[in-house]
Amino acid sequence: MTSLESSRRHLASDNWSGVHPEVIAALAAVNTGHLPSYGHDDYTESILDRLKSVFGKDTEIFFVFTGTGANVLGLQSLTRPYNSVICSETAHIHTSECGAVEKHSGCKLLTVASSDGKIDRDGIAAHLHDFGNDHSVQPSVVSISQATEYGTVYTRDEVQAIAAFAHDHGLKLHMDGARLANAAAHLGLSLRDVSGDAGVDVLSFGGTKNGLIAAEAVVFFDSELGRDFKYRRMQGMQLASKMRFIAAQFDALFTNDLWLRSATHANRLATLLGERLSAVPGFRVTQKIQANEVFAFVPREHIASLQDDCFFHVWDEAASEARFVTSFDTTENDVNSFAAAAGRIAAGMNQNG
Amino acid sequence: MTSLESSRRHLASDNWSGVHPEVIAALAAVNTGHLPSYGHDDYTESILDRLKSVFGKDTEIFFVFTGTGANVLGLQSLTRPYNSVICSETAHIHTSECGAVEKHSGCKLLTVASSDGKIDRDGIAAHLHDFGNDHSVQPSVVSISQATEYGTVYTRDEVQAIAAFAHDHGLKLHMDGARLANAAAHLGLSLRDVSGDAGVDVLSFGGTKNGLIAAEAVVFFDSELGRDFKYRRMQGMQLASKMRFIAAQFDALFTNDLWLRSATHANRLATLLGERLSAVPGFRVTQKIQANEVFAFVPREHIASLQDDCFFHVWDEAASEARFVTSFDTTENDVNSFAAAAGRIAAGMNQNG
Amino acid sequence: MTSLESSRRHLASDNWSGVHPEVIAALAAVNTGHLPSYGHDDYTESILDRLKSVFGKDTEIFFVFTGTGANVLGLQSLTRPYNSVICSETAHIHTSECGAVEKHSGCKLLTVASSDGKIDRDGIAAHLHDFGNDHSVQPSVVSISQATEYGTVYTRDEVQAIAAFAHDHGLKLHMDGARLANAAAHLGLSLRDVSGDAGVDVLSFGGTKNGLIAAEAVVFFDSELGRDFKYRRMQGMQLASKMRFIAAQFDALFTNDLWLRSATHANRLATLLGERLSAVPGFRVTQKIQANEVFAFVPREHIASLQDDCFFHVWDEAASEARFVTSFDTTENDVNSFAAAAGRIAAGMNQNG
Amino acid sequence: MTSLESSRRHLASDNWSGVHPEVIAALAAVNTGHLPSYGHDDYTESILDRLKSVFGKDTEIFFVFTGTGANVLGLQSLTRPYNSVICSETAHIHTSECGAVEKHSGCKLLTVASSDGKIDRDGIAAHLHDFGNDHSVQPSVVSISQATEYGTVYTRDEVQAIAAFAHDHGLKLHMDGARLANAAAHLGLSLRDVSGDAGVDVLSFGGTKNGLIAAEAVVFFDSELGRDFKYRRMQGMQLASKMRFIAAQFDALFTNDLWLRSATHANRLATLLGERLSAVPGFRVTQKIQANEVFAFVPREHIASLQDDCFFHVWDEAASEARFVTSFDTTENDVNSFAAAAGRIAAGMNQNG
Repeated sequence: MTSLESSRRHLASDNWSGVHPEVIAALAAVNTGHLPSYGHDDYTESILDRLKSVFGKDTEIFFVFTGTGANVLGLQSLTRPYNSVICSETAHIHTSECGAVEKHSGCKLLTVASSDGKIDRDGIAAHLHDFGNDHSVQPSVVSISQATEYGTVYTRDEVQAIAAFAHDHGLKLHMDGARLANAAAHLGLSLRDVSGDAGVDVLSFGGTKNGLIAAEAVVFFDSELGRDFKYRRMQGMQLASKMRFIAAQFDALFTNDLWLRSATHANRLATLLGERLSAVPGFRVTQKIQANEVFAFVPREHIASLQDDCFFHVWDEAASEARFVTSFDTTENDVNSFAAAAGRIAAGMNQNG
Repeated sequence: MTSLESSRRHLASDNWSGVHPEVIAALAAVNTGHLPSYGHDDYTESILDRLKSVFGKDTEIFFVFTGTGANVLGLQSLTRPYNSVICSETAHIHTSECGAVEKHSGCKLLTVASSDGKIDRDGIAAHLHDFGNDHSVQPSVVSISQATEYGTVYTRDEVQAIAAFAHDHGLKLHMDGARLANAAAHLGLSLRDVSGDAGVDVLSFGGTKNGLIAAEAVVFFDSELGRDFKYRRMQGMQLASKMRFIAAQFDALFTNDLWLRSATHANRLATLLGERLSAVPGFRVTQKIQANEVFAFVPREHIASLQDDCFFHVWDEAASEARFVTSFDTTENDVNSFAAAAGRIAAGMNQNG
Repeated sequence: MTSLESSRRHLASDNWSGVHPEVIAALAAVNTGHLPSYGHDDYTESILDRLKSVFGKDTEIFFVFTGTGANVLGLQSLTRPYNSVICSETAHIHTSECGAVEKHSGCKLLTVASSDGKIDRDGIAAHLHDFGNDHSVQPSVVSISQATEYGTVYTRDEVQAIAAFAHDHGLKLHMDGARLANAAAHLGLSLRDVSGDAGVDVLSFGGTKNGLIAAEAVVFFDSELGRDFKYRRMQGMQLASKMRFIAAQFDALFTNDLWLRSATHANRLATLLGERLSAVPGFRVTQKIQANEVFAFVPREHIASLQDDCFFHVWDEAASEARFVTSFDTTENDVNSFAAAAGRIAAGMNQNG
Repeated sequence: MTSLESSRRHLASDNWSGVHPEVIAALAAVNTGHLPSYGHDDYTESILDRLKSVFGKDTEIFFVFTGTGANVLGLQSLTRPYNSVICSETAHIHTSECGAVEKHSGCKLLTVASSDGKIDRDGIAAHLHDFGNDHSVQPSVVSISQATEYGTVYTRDEVQAIAAFAHDHGLKLHMDGARLANAAAHLGLSLRDVSGDAGVDVLSFGGTKNGLIAAEAVVFFDSELGRDFKYRRMQGMQLASKMRFIAAQFDALFTNDLWLRSATHANRLATLLGERLSAVPGFRVTQKIQANEVFAFVPREHIASLQDDCFFHVWDEAASEARFVTSFDTTENDVNSFAAAAGRIAAGMNQNG
């Protein structure tokens, strides 16, 4: 497999990267003897306790495999089928999960237009009508992504404002935190500061995009909301039999603040990439760079040759807007090389010229 | 964590065991550079090709995380919500998946009484009525487990007979092969011999119970049946973003026939355990030992002290019937020690006497 | 249409009969001017109030179209998808609703064997295990049919015993009362006596089989349980826009105790039919006759010619057991004629001999 | 009941009206003797045949109770849970059915902005992307309303253009024809001309809003698409046991073209109302009047007093836009009286001045 032998990194996605070496080591470390399955082992319990020390000791926390699993099952816990979930039109749950929320919860998603991935009270308010009208789905949850799918980050105040508004209207606040680590790193706040302490009721806490293999956690800040989650998780096909190997990934993630080291690193390189691309004639950064993503206008005629060496996704074909994502293993050299290639192409030279 | 430091093995379940060291090594080996996510990488493609060389080159094969995921999504591909699935009353999909099939497919499960986990044409036939009657669910699938939840194994002829009967009545045959490796090892046949070549339409091929972390495959022997599976997998929360790490586990499983080495080993020790327990006064093996499970009557008063050192599950409280499961890492010493302890207890000595 | 011009009645089902003339008159009577739709009219409100005076003023009552609709949506109000519903293996929800409960609620039905349609505490108790085990569906409702699908009737004590047992274990009691009127008439008790006052939590109260066109009510004896039913009804496609025409049918049903007159009449003729058939050599009544159904062994060779004039359903082909159902419009002459025909046939004469 | 005794008519909705007297008569006419239930009677068969002579003899037609039932089950027949349905943002299935499509089919609705209720190829085309991408729901149906929720009517050419476009992209065309009669009457075309012959694959054909009690039909122009509809109808709680009383309503509807007489009448009065309101200072008709609905700006301060005598719904609170609906029983006097009241109020006189 040439592809495996190569050490080339790309800027396509934080799930194109492999996993952090400390995670592989953690898997090997827990591979000893027999342990009760399905999470009934002391080790898993101890890692859950460690997460509770992070998110709050009154939380209920559950491990699942995927971000979609975390989002769907978390939202299911907050809804009945006649409810609706209010989210950004750019939300992963709306655009990228193949209708999983609708299929599993029965709920309708009500979307709010957004140019930067964020939503606010006005956008949410537009969907707050027809309470009590049995012809209309009944809003019960607001879901926001932190960081957003555009790499932007809600401030703590912004989350608090949305939470207060949602709660005032009887709705819960769900946070898709697939990149929560990047958001917290950007804000210089703890994971709890930007989620539960800001009013989030249920959090999908992402590990996979931050260096794990396939490990996410659902955090209920009000433990009552998670009372029956274990049944939903099993029925929802998200219960690992050899749970210790999910727990071990989180063990690594919270050992010596790996989550923060990785997120800070990725964020820094995204910022660097943004600076470098801004300096290239004809390129234009289109979103604030606050996490580990860079959105930029790339002259259409340069895309294919640039992708050839270092792949990235075209986000908006019509606008010729591309998305670049950094991860724990992106290097300064990766960024500089790519920017240099962009510069050469922009200067009319061929890429290897 | 004492539990992790201990090297003690139990006879509780093949998912109490850890993972085969060759699997951890395989994960480390593929952890190089960036690769396209969601299975769009050459490496995953190559491993799927290797599985196709095992199951048939016209198959369609998909990786998922869990056996429940494989069963649910495979069955969904064969049903509409007004259909029913005929299975043994002992089937994992009926007893142990928290109603996942009903929730996700909408279908009713129709169960067949069974003393050894197996079902046959007569049992199936009893549910084949009311075709065309819109008040009645319409049977569309027979699902059998190979090996069964009682550790028994269908012969190839038995599978063929069920397949022919199902097909004659317009039904498809699904096989829950969480322990297919053990069944094939017992029969001395290839994985394909006992599944697709015997008439199975869709197979859940288990890896987790045979030494993987969390990796299963859904095999469509008629590729047309799997045409839209990729959407069901994503919507069903079973699509791994870093797919290479699922593929790598199967890479290990099919390297130097690890699947067969592990299954043969586990089967052999189950047989040994059966022999040893049969020799203990008051113990009685209650099912044929054909795979890696032993069911046995254990005098009620001995259970707790035996479990103390080496855990096993009581399967049928009322009958004082226990289940013992061996796995790739069970040793002869484990079996002999346990049998010796049973012998001592049966002889009225205390366990450490 | 010859069939319409004929005034022939059969013994096939109480839904083969037309509707009571007083019901047609009630429809005509409310067909005046415009009224708010979807039940927001004073007239519908007044009929609901009348039903509340029957079932209890703290009940919440909703009209729906069909018995299946009442059962499914009522059960949905008592369950989450990981729950199960315990019912008789003969229950309409299990045998005759094309898997509607599973499809809409996601729940598994757990059945209790029954020779007369009734279940009791022992049968229910057998399913009360694995509470808290996330691999197992969690029982949350017992559902009984009153009268049963075999025309038998639970005494008030029997209902109370089941209710107390269910409640003791944290389960709710649902009653499929498609023929509740017949049961109450048999017992000489009020509708409320045999449902809410006996411990039923949610009732499907049938009108259609007792002379209405298509009108059923869901009665929540604990109004809190019905708090969100209106959304489930709309989403469940059971909300009538011209609701007054459903209400009008119940108006007729409770005017001068039409429900009781019709049920008493039908019950009486079923008893008469049972007596007559018991007197025919070779015929044998197989179930207690307590409501408006007669189950009887009919010599196989006589079935076709008897059905020719007066249709009835063969219930159990293998046992040559037939089901006869009387309704509000069955006459003594219908019963006597049929019994006479049976007698002639049994005596070896041809039917018109 | 004052409300029942009153003969007052309103302009609130065509489901505030009662039912056409010919329909009540038809119900009485079929109320003779016993007939096979669930539609297995010759009479129902004969009415279905009559509808087939209207819509095409190769169609498959099924009766259901409600428009939501028709839409949901019709769409279910055209979709798998990972599909999406493209419709106007004003579509009844999106705004007024409490999320029924999502709950029952699992599908996501993708909406097209519309100022008059209609959509066109460009709006649809914007959702036709990501075919084959397993992260994205896969569009499989376009659903249009004829007449639309704004009382506008697609021309036959417009329907054909949408149908051709949908079919070219592998999608089916569903038509919500709750007011198809009004659309056909407006266009001077047959019901079939504006549906199946224009390319519609599945039609919800409305009866309730055109003078029936609760009776709709699902018409499959390609009978193969309706092959398994009978199971979906039963499981979907839309199967009437006393089916002849649904059939009888359609019997009346197609006797002496009642459907056309009623629709033409309602359309004519809507046009008259539009003319009258346009003449009132300060009032302004906001949508083309092509069926039986009038949308008009009504000065906010006049709304309450006008509603007092003749109720109508405010459609858009912010824009002070009201909706007026005529029906089979609306009279010229109703329209003139209302317009006169509006004129008096606009002239500054009190309403009874």
